This record gives sequence, C-alpha cells and structure tokens, in this order.
Amino acid sequence: MTKRPNVLWIMADQLRFDYLSCYGHPHLHTPHIDALAKRGVQFNKAYIQSPVCGPSRMSAYTGRYVRSHGSTWNGMPLRVGEPTLGDHLREAGARAVLVGKTHMTADLEGMAWLGIDPDSTIGVSRSECGFDPFERDDGLHPDSARQKWSAYDDYLVENGFKSENPWGDFANSGLDENGERLSAWLLKNSRLPADVPEEHSETAYMTNRAIDFMTEATADGRPWMCHLSYIKPHWPYIVPKPYHDMYGPEHVIAPVRSEAERDTDHPLMQAYLNARVCRSFARDHVREHVIPAYMGLIKQLDDNLGRLFAWMEAAGLSENTIIAFTSDHGDYMGDHWMGDKDFYHDVAAKVPLIIADPRAEADASRGSICEELVEMIDLAPTFMNALGCEAKPHIIEGRDLTPILNGTEGFSRRYAISEHDYHWSDMARALGVAQEHAHTVMIFDGRWKFIRCEGFRPVLFDLETDPQEVKDLGASEQADHIAVRARMEAALLDWARRHHTRITATSAVLARQKIAAEGGILIGFWDEQEYEEATGKPFSSLVPAGRPG
Amino acid sequence: MTKRPNVLWIMADQLRFDYLSCYGHPHLHTPHIDALAKRGVQFNKAYIQSPVCGPSRMSAYTGRYVRSHGSTWNGMPLRVGEPTLGDHLREAGARAVLVGKTHMTADLEGMAWLGIDPDSTIGVSRSECGFDPFERDDGLHPDSARQKWSAYDDYLVENGFKSENPWGDFANSGLDENGERLSAWLLKNSRLPADVPEEHSETAYMTNRAIDFMTEATADGRPWMCHLSYIKPHWPYIVPKPYHDMYGPEHVIAPVRSEAERDTDHPLMQAYLNARVCRSFARDHVREHVIPAYMGLIKQLDDNLGRLFAWMEAAGLSENTIIAFTSDHGDYMGDHWMGDKDFYHDVAAKVPLIIADPRAEADASRGSICEELVEMIDLAPTFMNALGCEAKPHIIEGRDLTPILNGTEGFSRRYAISEHDYHWSDMARALGVAQEHAHTVMIFDGRWKFIRCEGFRPVLFDLETDPQEVKDLGASEQADHIAVRARMEAALLDWARRHHTRITATSAVLARQKIAAEGGILIGFWDEQEYEEATGKPFSSLVPAGRPG
Repeated sequence: MTKRPNVLWIMADQLRFDYLSCYGHPHLHTPHIDALAKRGVQFNKAYIQSPVCGPSRMSAYTGRYVRSHGSTWNGMPLRVGEPTLGDHLREAGARAVLVGKTHMTADLEGMAWLGIDPDSTIGVSRSECGFDPFERDDGLHPDSARQKWSAYDDYLVENGFKSENPWGDFANSGLDENGERLSAWLLKNSRLPADVPEEHSETAYMTNRAIDFMTEATADGRPWMCHLSYIKPHWPYIVPKPYHDMYGPEHVIAPVRSEAERDTDHPLMQAYLNARVCRSFARDHVREHVIPAYMGLIKQLDDNLGRLFAWMEAAGLSENTIIAFTSDHGDYMGDHWMGDKDFYHDVAAKVPLIIADPRAEADASRGSICEELVEMIDLAPTFMNALGCEAKPHIIEGRDLTPILNGTEGFSRRYAISEHDYHWSDMARALGVAQEHAHTVMIFDGRWKFIRCEGFRPVLFDLETDPQEVKDLGASEQADHIAVRARMEAALLDWARRHHTRITATSAVLARQKIAAEGGILIGFWDEQEYEEATGKPFSSLVPAGRPG
Repeated sequence: MTKRPNVLWIMADQLRFDYLSCYGHPHLHTPHIDALAKRGVQFNKAYIQSPVCGPSRMSAYTGRYVRSHGSTWNGMPLRVGEPTLGDHLREAGARAVLVGKTHMTADLEGMAWLGIDPDSTIGVSRSECGFDPFERDDGLHPDSARQKWSAYDDYLVENGFKSENPWGDFANSGLDENGERLSAWLLKNSRLPADVPEEHSETAYMTNRAIDFMTEATADGRPWMCHLSYIKPHWPYIVPKPYHDMYGPEHVIAPVRSEAERDTDHPLMQAYLNARVCRSFARDHVREHVIPAYMGLIKQLDDNLGRLFAWMEAAGLSENTIIAFTSDHGDYMGDHWMGDKDFYHDVAAKVPLIIADPRAEADASRGSICEELVEMIDLAPTFMNALGCEAKPHIIEGRDLTPILNGTEGFSRRYAISEHDYHWSDMARALGVAQEHAHTVMIFDGRWKFIRCEGFRPVLFDLETDPQEVKDLGASEQADHIAVRARMEAALLDWARRHHTRITATSAVLARQKIAAEGGILIGFWDEQEYEEATGKPFSSLVPAGRPG
C-alpha cells in the first residue's frame, strides 16, 4: 500500500489497563478491543506522562513531557506557543480532527498578547490542542452553572431530554423505583440505569460522530487523523440499561492492598490515604457498588467500538486506517486504599495501548504482545511517521513506535517518566505544601519504580519481587536499594538536563549555526597565514578591496 | 519621590569583571564607572546564565534560565511565545526601548505558524526580545556578505566613510604606516588605531543615540527603561586614537594559569585547550598585544559613560533614573590557557554589576559592596518592581534585588546557575559529541563551583582554598570533595525539577483552579449526607430541580 494511511486514535478516559479481557480481566469480556489487539500489537508496559487527565493529554497531544509543555494540571492553559501533533500533521497536508474530549484550557492571555483572535482559524486550533474541532465535548462539571453546554446537550434536547443541564440530569442521573431523579455524582447512585437509552448515551453519540466525520473525510479525500476521545468510563460512574446490572459484586476482584501500606510513615502517602476520595474507595461497599457500573461502562464502550469497527469495515476504511486504542490514565478503585488516580501505581499510571496497523509492513507484529517500556508521548511521532510528517526531534520527546509495529530493530527506552503537580489537592492542603513545591515525578525502568517527592523521601517499588507494588522500599537501608535510588536520581537528572525547550532548533537553524560556527567566527587568528592554514582560503577573500572614492 | 523612576540599563559586551578599577584593576582606571558604584551598589558575585552572548542575553531579557527560554546558543531563535521584560513593562504602561545589541534571532517559523506578520508592531517586538527598537545594532560578522547593514553604517557613510562594509573597513580596521588597510579580525592588527575618529566610533555613536532616545522620551513623558547595549569591548579588538596606545605590555597583568591545568586528563577540558581560540590566547605575545587594545576599549567606554552621565545630570534625568551597568559575560584573555569565553571560570562567568538607584529608599546601600550571589536574571524582576509591574513568579525565575538596594532583608540565593550548549564548537567536533548531548551546567554556592559535563566527569573548584580556580577537584577521591559533588548533583536536580515552563500559571488561573479543586471535584461522595458534612452545603443545591416539561 503506497498511499498514506489514516489514523483513528481512540482514547478512553480513566480506563485501567487491567479492565479489558485481553489484559486479563476474568469477568469483563471486551471482544471487540481484544480483536483489535489480535489485528495489531498489544503494549503491556505503556505509561502515561501524568496521572491526571489534562497534563496526560497535553503530553499525548504534544509528544512532550509535562515539564516541557508546562500544562501541569487540569485547567492550566497550554501555552499558545506550544506546537502540537495537529500542527505537525497539518504541515504535512493531513487533517487532524477532534471528536470528543481534550481537557484543554485555552491560553487566552497568551493569544491576546500575540494578537491572535480566539475565533480565527489559528485561534480555534490553539484552543483545541492544535486539532480542527469536529465535535468537542469537555463536559464533566457537577452543576449546570459550570457545565458547558455542548452539542451533545443539544442532541439530548432534540431527542426529548429537556432541561438546563441534560448531560447532568439525564445522561448522568438515574431514576429510582419511585421515579426520583438521583445524581451519579453520588456514588450510591452508581447502580441505577442512566436516564437515557443506550443509543442516546454520550458513548453512543460520540461513536456516531466519529462515523459522521469519517463519512465526510472519505468524501474530502485528504489523509486524516481522527482523535476519537470518549469521556467514559470516567466518573460520574453510571451507565444505561442493560449495562447497569450486567455485573455485580461477584464480578469485583478483591482489592490489592496491604496493612503495611495503611501504616506508611511517608507523610505524602499518609495524606493521600486521608484524602476524601481515597477514604471513600477504601471502603468495600463503595468498591462493590461502583466497580460494576465502571465495568458496565467499559462493556458498553467495547460494544460501541464493535459497531464502529464493523461500520469502518463495511465502508472500506479498515484496510487503510491505523487504529490506536488507549486511555489517559487508570483508576485506583480502592487498590492500595486509594481512589481516582493522581499517583503512580500501575493501576493509575499504566494504560492499555493497542495499535493495529493494517499495512503489510506490520504483518510481522500482528497479534503480538510488546513488553517494551513505551510512553503516551510515543504516539505523536508514530502517527507523524505514518502520515508522512518529517521527524521533529527538537520538539518531539516521544519515540516512534514504527519499528515495533514493523517487527524491526530500532526502538529503545530505558526509563518511563510521569509527573504530577498536586498543588491544589487535599494532600497539599493537609501538608501545607506550597504550590510551587507540590510535585512528584516517577521514573520506572521496567523493574524499579522510583518516585521523587519534593520535600519528602522518595517512594520505591521493586516490581520483580513485588509486582503488586505494596512494599515501599523508599526508606530501606538495604545496600542494593540505596544503590537503585542513587541510580534513579542520576537518571532523573540526566532526563531533566536534556534539551526540551530548544524547540526552535530546526534542521535549518542547526545547519545555519554550523556554517556560522565553522566558517564565520574569526576570533583567535593572529595573522593571514594562520587564517589561511586553518581554513584553506585566503584571508583577503573576507576583506573588501579598500576604501572606495 | 513618588513618581515612577526610569531605568537606564547599560550592557557592555565581553567585559571581564576585573577590568575596571572599582573591581581592582591596577592599571585601567575607570573613574566614571567607579563613581557610579559609589552612587549605588557594586555586586561582587554576579553570574551570567550562559557564557555566550546570545543565551546570556536571552536570560537577561526574559528573567529566565537558559533551559527555560530554550535559546541555548547564538543564532537559536527565541521562541515566539516566550515573554520578555519588555512585554511585562509595556503591560504596566512603561516603554521598554532598545539602543544597541541584543543578539536576538527572530523565530520566523513560529511567527508564520501563529499568523504573526514580522513587520507588524507585535512582530517587530517579537523579533527584538520584546523591546521597541529605537536603534538596533547587532553587527559582528567578518565579511560584508554577512554583515547586516545598520544605521551605524549609514552614519559612517554620511560622515565620509564610504564602502560596502564601513563597519568592517573603518570602525574595525586600521591603517598601517604605509596606509595599508588591515582588519582587526586578525589579532596582530589590534594595536593599530581604528580608522575612525573616536567621535565616530560605534561606542560614541551608541552613546549619542541613547541621548537621542532620552531626549525624545523626556518629551514623551511615559516612564521608560532604556537598554543601552554596547558591542565593545567584544572582539574585533581595535580602538580609535588616543585609546589605541594608552596601554602597553607593561599594563598587562600576568596570566592566571597552572601547569596542572595544561596537563588535565579531562577530555572536554583538553578539547577546550586545543580549540583554536585557546591555543591563540595561551601565547604570551597574543595576550600582550591584544590586552592593551581591550583595555583601551574599556577606557573609551568609561569616558563615553562619563559624557552620558554628565548629560543626564544636566538634563535633570539623574535624580529619577536608576542606572544599571553590567556585561553579558567575560573574556579569558589567556587565563587558564583559554581565550574568548564559553566556560565557567570567574573571568568568563562572573560580570561586573553596578546598580545606582537615586531614590531615597536606596540611600542605605549607597556606595556599598554586595557579596550576595546574584544572577543576571535578577535584573528583570528588579526593573519590573521599579517600574510598577506586578511580580510574575510563574514566568520570572530571577529574584528581585530591591531589598539589597534598599538595605533591607529579603534577598536570598543559595546557588547560581549557568549553562552552555557547545553543540557546534571545536570541542564537540574534536570529541565527536552529538549536538543533543553537548552541554554543561555550572552550579556555584559561593564557595564550590561544580560543573556537570554531560558524558564526562564533572569539574569542581573550591574558591575558598583556590580562588584562582586552577585546581580541578572533579575527580578527587577526598571524602569532602565526594560529598560536595553529591550535594551539588542533588541541588542541580532540585533546580532542574522546578516549574519553569508553567508560564500560564497566572494568579487568575491558580485562583480558578483552587475554586475548582476545593468546590467542584465531586468524586468520592457516597451520599447527600457525606457531601453536606464535608461542604456545609446541601447537595440539592447542585442538582437542577428535575426534568422540565
């Protein structure tokens, strides 16, 4: 196949890596995602760059670490001058289109400073992570005052679900047996069926919108990347019939947690355990009530993907479309006595990642499992390569996964990195940590997971002897643990010292500097002879003939 | 004095800290600069952020470390989205004006991407480090093909110095006794008088232009900061009569250098010593020939500053203008067997810095010597404070020097940092270091100077026992040296992990995030009662009353 492929990049939100049958879940069967894995490569060690939606996504969309793009937490605008995957693809003549969630906050102050009209083509793109918005849906606010009205809200109203906040009142609420409306913002209501039929749910709607886009794009003819970004299974945890009671407490796997974890002497870990969401999910009845709804949401997603993939097959798109499936981070769900995400155990920091490339070059890897350490920022260079965009090593910090897809040599990574800025969290409040010091960074080499906690001792897990990560070796006096910690600190410094803001070092700039350096810096020549011996050129060639007139 | 002061920020180029009489030079008398020090504070430990013009200046103009602004070497464009001192001052209603050199390379590719016309007001400002250009002069190319024609070239032509490159042919050439034109690009010609009279030299011209600006600004009435940025005493080393023979070999101080330095086993240091410019300045006859010209250039600069200060006094500007005097880096001049700059001995990385604030608040510090560790990036926040601009801790990494000027508590710095990207240097070529790994970073705590050299062992100097920095302790097995090196590595990691790209974290953004975090993230509440106990508000206040219609 010589023509450029398209890329469909599917992202689920808050999907744990181990809640898919291809990743080993014993009760949750996800045959459509499993089938995608069979057609491509399933990555078993894929790490996100921050265990929070916004920064994780900004890394995915820029191909850069959080410390590089600077959007370190939800609501922190991505600076106007930060180039994204969409910009690179557009430059190469492809479309980069958004269908769904990005969690981007626009840098309106930066746009005003640079004279960019937010409603101009450039302004809209800058406000949408560099994508062309086809359908944007960044909902997820608790109340109607803050919930931004979206096209999905319009859709709900058109279909008879009329209110000031149809997303909250119908799609994310249920009716109890007395017909009382109960909000899924409260965990006790998770087992109610959402008050929309499945075909009008947000997951189904967004799937339809992806089909709309692909229909239009096929007519358009330009190659494209479509980022199909689902909001679920992110909280509020509620799912329509029949998924709401497809699973019960008997399908809930026992939590991974130890008494040693609860007795931690690490102030930051203590603060995590004391945070409301962790106290909540540490309770068995919460887990047993919420997890079945979470599983239902994933099952519903899998069914919608089945529908989507079948449509693509029928539309003739399967043979020329690379499909990637992943998530922006996981969900503790009570493991380690924790809830939500925000830290670095595998259940939060590791995500499912499947890439199915239909081209013949990728036949060698089809159906394989990859145990290489990969990062979410690797997707951007991989898609750039697929769509014929030049590599941009001065901007992109991820590594092209194409060698893995093609079963060839050439991919390597020694460490995965993830960062977290917890400045307004319960933990920062409890510990009185100033917002500029409230950050942690994980470095993982495939065995040792080292977490540097500014102002506190590090946390260390050995995933070889403790794959469940329940034994913190961060204060261990054992010689090999001390040596590992020193090695990890040194590796972090190596990483932190790498060029990462030198984004103007284009090949043209580097070439121009090389010429200037090699030919033009004249300092240090005593006389003509030295100059001529060093350069092979007469010095007189540099000096105009003399004073005219 | 209640009205906002003006700021005149004078920068010399490549001026060593110790080539002024107030900094101890025994033969070079600089009474006008000395007098400025008597009217203000003389900083004895002021460090630049990179020992090269471009990156040092980009740090000065942004108030940010090199790793933050990303313009790591000469010719590396400052990215279009990098805010500068000029932008901050303009926002506060002050003018920020350039008279002279910046060494800025505009990010034309970035401007095209964001739709900014380089000739628009915003485009011109982005191309000039955020300054409004009054007079720009970034000359310094060896040949007429690369020498950009400047207003100073026009001026020379108007005054009878006609050629295709009057800057090179007259201002930076001399005539020998036979009337032959000899270029100051060759060091042997340094002792000739430049072929322009002093009053038409670049230093005099730029002084006149500063006077022109201040005359205009006084009529305008808005507060201003004027960056008066001289190209000299930077090479080509040549100076007009009578300065060309004011000094001779008898005024040249013996070089600071040791045999141990020449015998270094450090590959990078060996490569430095083998670089052409170092081999050149390691020769005594080169030093003895060039240094008198360098001294003459400084003496000429001092005389012009005397003229400028006298004019300001007569114009009534002295009483309301803060004057800062500094340089962008030093010059080895054969010390340590080295030439030019590019490394971190004090003669390259430490600069003269004098700040004279005429306001009564600063009377307490007048005429004092400050031994605090300060950095070039401290000037931006100091000027912002003086001109009434809000502090911007999310962008500015320098620290406000106002407490030092006012003789109050509040300034502190434990470490000074400087960085160098040597990717196209003789050293990188000789060692085969890839451009992405060719960097070093200095961290100095006032006693220990530690230089991390990626790919090589570090260099370490103890300035307490070895103030001349001739004894490299980077490989010492002595326990206290090992401990110092570990402490410095840890401090570097602390520094490297600080937020530095999080420039959209304005106080408004942080406040918005705080509200969202404290009030809006609902995850983890089991029921209404938990919500109400935790928040003190009824849960029903979040939920619209029910399905309408």
